[in-house]
Amino acid sequence: MSGLEFLFHPRSIAVVGVPSNPENMQGGTFFMDALMKFGYRGNLYPVNPRASEILGLKAYPDLMSVPKPLDYVICCLPASLTPQLVKDCTAKGVRAVCIYTAGFSEESAEGRRLEQKLVSLARQGGVRIIGPNCLGIYSPSTHLSYSPLYSKEAGRVGLLCQSGGISSELAQLASHRGIRFSKVISYGNAADLDEADFIEYLAQDVETTTIAAYVEGTKDGTRFLRTLAKAAAVKPVIILKGGRTDGGAKAAASHTGALAGSREKWDILFQQLGVMQVHSLKELLDLVLAFQYIKPPRGKRVGIIGGGGGASVVATDACENAGLSVPAFSNELRHDLERLISKTGNITSNPIDCFAAVGNRSLLLQIAKLVADSKEVDLLIMQVSIIGVYPVESKSLVEWLEAIIEASRLVNLPMAVVPSNGDLPASSGLYFKLHQRCLQAGLAVYPNLSDAAQAIGRFVHYHAWMYDKRASSRPKRLSS
Amino acid sequence: MSGLEFLFHPRSIAVVGVPSNPENMQGGTFFMDALMKFGYRGNLYPVNPRASEILGLKAYPDLMSVPKPLDYVICCLPASLTPQLVKDCTAKGVRAVCIYTAGFSEESAEGRRLEQKLVSLARQGGVRIIGPNCLGIYSPSTHLSYSPLYSKEAGRVGLLCQSGGISSELAQLASHRGIRFSKVISYGNAADLDEADFIEYLAQDVETTTIAAYVEGTKDGTRFLRTLAKAAAVKPVIILKGGRTDGGAKAAASHTGALAGSREKWDILFQQLGVMQVHSLKELLDLVLAFQYIKPPRGKRVGIIGGGGGASVVATDACENAGLSVPAFSNELRHDLERLISKTGNITSNPIDCFAAVGNRSLLLQIAKLVADSKEVDLLIMQVSIIGVYPVESKSLVEWLEAIIEASRLVNLPMAVVPSNGDLPASSGLYFKLHQRCLQAGLAVYPNLSDAAQAIGRFVHYHAWMYDKRASSRPKRLSS
Repeated sequence: MSGLEFLFHPRSIAVVGVPSNPENMQGGTFFMDALMKFGYRGNLYPVNPRASEILGLKAYPDLMSVPKPLDYVICCLPASLTPQLVKDCTAKGVRAVCIYTAGFSEESAEGRRLEQKLVSLARQGGVRIIGPNCLGIYSPSTHLSYSPLYSKEAGRVGLLCQSGGISSELAQLASHRGIRFSKVISYGNAADLDEADFIEYLAQDVETTTIAAYVEGTKDGTRFLRTLAKAAAVKPVIILKGGRTDGGAKAAASHTGALAGSREKWDILFQQLGVMQVHSLKELLDLVLAFQYIKPPRGKRVGIIGGGGGASVVATDACENAGLSVPAFSNELRHDLERLISKTGNITSNPIDCFAAVGNRSLLLQIAKLVADSKEVDLLIMQVSIIGVYPVESKSLVEWLEAIIEASRLVNLPMAVVPSNGDLPASSGLYFKLHQRCLQAGLAVYPNLSDAAQAIGRFVHYHAWMYDKRASSRPKRLSS
Repeated sequence: MSGLEFLFHPRSIAVVGVPSNPENMQGGTFFMDALMKFGYRGNLYPVNPRASEILGLKAYPDLMSVPKPLDYVICCLPASLTPQLVKDCTAKGVRAVCIYTAGFSEESAEGRRLEQKLVSLARQGGVRIIGPNCLGIYSPSTHLSYSPLYSKEAGRVGLLCQSGGISSELAQLASHRGIRFSKVISYGNAADLDEADFIEYLAQDVETTTIAAYVEGTKDGTRFLRTLAKAAAVKPVIILKGGRTDGGAKAAASHTGALAGSREKWDILFQQLGVMQVHSLKELLDLVLAFQYIKPPRGKRVGIIGGGGGASVVATDACENAGLSVPAFSNELRHDLERLISKTGNITSNPIDCFAAVGNRSLLLQIAKLVADSKEVDLLIMQVSIIGVYPVESKSLVEWLEAIIEASRLVNLPMAVVPSNGDLPASSGLYFKLHQRCLQAGLAVYPNLSDAAQAIGRFVHYHAWMYDKRASSRPKRLSS
């Protein structure tokens, strides 16, 4: 078991600094409420010197009074009381303390000194600190969470996040996108355990196949990069670097006390290491989704099926701008397609504009099979237009989607589905339904073509990079 | 009145090629249905040689039998019958014919010859052609539409669109975003009336303040650019150029027979002319929205209020990457803010992370007023997080939005609202509600910060460009 495995499987938790009145939704109450609603199965102890019972659980005046061993402590005390708490953790044999409390290095020089004091106390006493100024651990397999709203289902994505708010946004957005997490760590100011520790842990964690990170800064750039390099060599690593701009770096310093570092330096280093850099939460999730749902394609040639004429043109531009290619079909394939689809009002090249085929299951299956058998493309993007010039019946779209799912099983090519314009009041209900059905069938869904192209372009590029890397390392191994 | 004004105000319309059975939802039925549902107030004549009544209206065997003058004809006949129809239009004194029929220059050399024949017949006879392979005109002020789904309210955006499908997507997406159109033209193969004609018309149209265009190609690049230059000098012109990539250009040729031209050439020319190029429908609408809802700012300094710490860092990066600046506040302003907001757990610089203030109306008003009075920023972006770490009450978010609207009236700075993460099943209902309320209050809404930053960055850049252009042209005028 890796050095940090214990963080994700605490057998008991104390939350310190829980108001005696549960109506007071301060940090302590939030954490207790989240753990209880999330069904945490270990022992849970609220700590408050002036209460005997909180939220139906026996409360304790301090850590030392808790009758059983404690693995994990969540600290919601004011900053001034945290040094004593770390001492208590040490005395009680606690393995890790998550310090939710803010007001440390992100706020002032005095706060920075206090933070350093916590670290030296912790290191002396053998307790590890997550934070301060963070939310800690979300580990679905052990029903450990800092919000009742996250998915209880465990998955394969490990996320480290310097911002608690962003970790929470990502957890909820990801859940809707069909992405599930092995572990999420909100680690704030990174006073003790830091980005390098968590990357190192996730790189060797067998439950994690993709690593995603939101990082504002690092105190030890050399170690961080060494760890990233090792991680990127074995798993896809996707990073959103906060504080890339001058203004962003200042905001990061105010947020987590992070030293954001030079943008150009990070850009080059990430690229050299094969770390995929993204610039928004949406882009991060789009890319994670590709790694979780799309089979690695053999090349970058995309076949696009199902959009109208203009949508096909814009889709092609989006794909080729993202480094993919949308090759024109051979005359042979076009002739075969023209036996199925009339040329008039349709397009029988790539993209295939086959409005006539929408709702015609067997026609779609024949088209998909012809395209797949031709070996002229490496992956397929299926466009589904939820709004049309004329009202579209939701029943026929649902049937059309079933035909697409059937086609995906028939052709055995990597595939993504793009049900566009699902973000209108009149279309969102149907969008959510189609989206859910695709995820059930194991198909990646993107809400629009430009986002899909962007993510799939990166995904294809990653596999090409890994392939080249492995190919270039082979002769060396033979000669050594 | 401009040369093309008549296109948008036909007093009578004949739809030629309407199936006698209205269950047969072919083109002719679609157009009739759209015009009737949209409440077209002029005379409407279905034409079919084998029917006496269609959809409750008297049908005529041909154009010549229609008893009254005809301004506008919509042709849904097979391609082979279109030359005779154009002759009939000429004989009947029709001013314009929209040819919905496909199968012309986009399909084959033969189709190209037929298309040329139509043009020469039309020019001889004094009738103008829209299309072929298009949907024609949506002119809300005259209740003329090719879909029953579009807004009946007229607005200030003129849109020309080489793709009917894209015009339809844009019409519906725009309507939801609070964007209303003066005129929309779907013009397909542009055999007679072309992109230059429509740009020229919209440039002088008093009902149009912003021009948006989806163009795949042009047959007369010199004239198109001359027209664009004139238009861009008087109104913002936003263009989505289809067929920018190799694959996209091939798709465009199959779609509308367009010669897409060199990407580099267009990029440079658009930039020189001050034409704003976008790369997706979403980007187009985001930018149009800015021109319709945000007052021109005096500079590029943005104040951001309301996000969490991480969201503030990412927002700042997005803004500065888009050419805006998010300046740190002066010590003076920070001290004033610290009298209102605790430093611990909040950020009192720019962006202001004031989670504590959410739901506190008077605190928001005080913060907004301090920031506005300081003159340290030129515009404001208000972040509203619809999902949080803990469940958010929709009532308190609605009240918070009312406070934001009140603040927008108090401070008199250009402003946009970003209610993020409204695209989840659990949040979309509330998002649509908040969104609608903002639009009613005249506030621009963006669904996420990166899209908002992108659009506002372009918008601010446009105003700076126009300012420089006017400034540099003044001395010349004085000296001439």
